[in-house]
Amino acid sequence: MKTVQDYIRTIPDFPHEGIMFRDVTTLFSDPRGFRIAIDQLLHPYAGQPIDKVIGLEARGFILGGAIAHQLGKGFVPIRKKGKLPGKTIEQAYTLEYGEAIVEIHDDALQPGEKILLVDDLLATGGTAEAGIKLIERMGAEVVGCAFVIDLPDLGGRKRLEGLGMDVHALCSFEGE
Amino acid sequence: MKTVQDYIRTIPDFPHEGIMFRDVTTLFSDPRGFRIAIDQLLHPYAGQPIDKVIGLEARGFILGGAIAHQLGKGFVPIRKKGKLPGKTIEQAYTLEYGEAIVEIHDDALQPGEKILLVDDLLATGGTAEAGIKLIERMGAEVVGCAFVIDLPDLGGRKRLEGLGMDVHALCSFEGE
Repeated sequence: MKTVQDYIRTIPDFPHEGIMFRDVTTLFSDPRGFRIAIDQLLHPYAGQPIDKVIGLEARGFILGGAIAHQLGKGFVPIRKKGKLPGKTIEQAYTLEYGEAIVEIHDDALQPGEKILLVDDLLATGGTAEAGIKLIERMGAEVVGCAFVIDLPDLGGRKRLEGLGMDVHALCSFEGE
Repeated sequence: MKTVQDYIRTIPDFPHEGIMFRDVTTLFSDPRGFRIAIDQLLHPYAGQPIDKVIGLEARGFILGGAIAHQLGKGFVPIRKKGKLPGKTIEQAYTLEYGEAIVEIHDDALQPGEKILLVDDLLATGGTAEAGIKLIERMGAEVVGCAFVIDLPDLGGRKRLEGLGMDVHALCSFEGE
């Protein structure tokens, strides 16, 4: 029987030469693939209190929407700067070249709320770390960071674990 | 009891002056709001065959992920140009100023598949029409277009109905 990893397609040289892009759209478009991915993303958190699910733009929205609905909880987006209409707090983070900023609505979380953070891919962990900082600045608590794919050679897992995070990934690709 | 519309917040002058932006993040972040929105989006299609759910970037991903998972179907994204890693087909459409392009992976749909298209907002219907064209160019069939919000004064519903579409919206704001 196919695993989550088996449904993921690799596209060479996207978005630029030398990158092996791990494409989850073939996982999401398969009814069984999508079902087992969402199930497995949630397995570590069974019986654990979660108040809200946060997805990182944009593929994290697909997973986060499904997970929040499955749990019967609310969904909150963390977006690239300029996309959220209300008052936000923002967090900068470093990219390979330059800097990016992510934002959350400043009334989206309450102090003490327990948050599950989800995205498709853990690479360097830069975006996830910025998201964690936003959540913690609002006084909420990240109870788990769940990803479909981990690229361990890029160091994201160690970076997030160094922040005290519980990191869960369904599969990994080494040698990236 | 609050309706879907009651959970939607209005932000004046976003993204530019004179626009009353209807913000669904307050709907999605509320567990009951999100639950009733997904339920009501699906009500017209109960018992109807649907093979795949397509969401339009980016808020349509949140809804589409939840709906595909609820139905036990696959999810396929339609994205702005340049975001999808595989081979795509693209469709241009007209904006207030200029033009935009959306894309779908060229192997994401099979001829004859029945598609539910979802997004948060139906305004002029330009993006939705481009999405419909992409789906139909692949030989698949749009069995419904479901939106949280309809802005009837902007003509999107009439435009999509003129294409023979079944349009479903949970609430509307007039005088836009």
